[in-house]
Amino acid sequence: MKKLFSLVVSVVLLAFSGAASAQFAKAEDAIKYRKASFTVMGVHFSRIGAMVNGSVPFDAAAAANNAQLVETMSRLPWAAFGAGTDKGDTKAKAEIWSDAAKFKGYSDKLVTDAAKLNAAAKMGNADAVKAAFGAVAGTCKACHDDFRNK
Amino acid sequence: MKKLFSLVVSVVLLAFSGAASAQFAKAEDAIKYRKASFTVMGVHFSRIGAMVNGSVPFDAAAAANNAQLVETMSRLPWAAFGAGTDKGDTKAKAEIWSDAAKFKGYSDKLVTDAAKLNAAAKMGNADAVKAAFGAVAGTCKACHDDFRNK
Repeated sequence: MKKLFSLVVSVVLLAFSGAASAQFAKAEDAIKYRKASFTVMGVHFSRIGAMVNGSVPFDAAAAANNAQLVETMSRLPWAAFGAGTDKGDTKAKAEIWSDAAKFKGYSDKLVTDAAKLNAAAKMGNADAVKAAFGAVAGTCKACHDDFRNK
Repeated sequence: MKKLFSLVVSVVLLAFSGAASAQFAKAEDAIKYRKASFTVMGVHFSRIGAMVNGSVPFDAAAAANNAQLVETMSRLPWAAFGAGTDKGDTKAKAEIWSDAAKFKGYSDKLVTDAAKLNAAAKMGNADAVKAAFGAVAGTCKACHDDFRNK
């Protein structure tokens, strides 16, 4: 039953992905876009990371600015994992499409975690930022472990 | 006098760029980041373009979403044009650094134009979006003509 549900979700997601990928003329455009959005997200996330690990002092305004960008970027890559974008200049594993429900679980969690990071940064509380940063980092890593080739 | 002013502005900008580029550990990181931010900006800008040229129907919500992203992204690339980021995997012309004041003029204009596009899109007026889109496109082209290699 759980497997059937997962299959149904996957089919629905693939149909949705197909529609979303129609926003890109070519698969390589979708791949370039999703990689670019991860790159921008990663840069701003790592600037918060530098404050969290103490390599630069905590700067509430900079943390808030970077966290806002992380939240914005966290919403972008997923529509670019449409059908047919599994081949090319990408480290995406085939499991993104064969276990689309699990992948969507991670992407939804990232969006939620990034929103919490943004909320913590807006409060300007370094400890809250640190905790929220850790949650985002954990979601990144878990998804990379399962769905990204080395 | 005008030349002297331009020189002074360039020196100040280079000093500022030097500080900004300190946000990137390596020049190639800065280049990758600025290209990524242009890629994301371009995708969302072109989605508005498709409405403007009539290849897809005007969709106020989609225009507003894309214009918000264009405005957000329009602020990002410039800090990644610091000293030492003129070599590598980049189409940036040397004039970006030798005529930094002019380049900054374009980048400031893009930020302003993108904010106007976002404001027009928020109003949901297709004609206003079309006009504001044209201004942004003109700024992109002018800057690319002067400062980007083919």
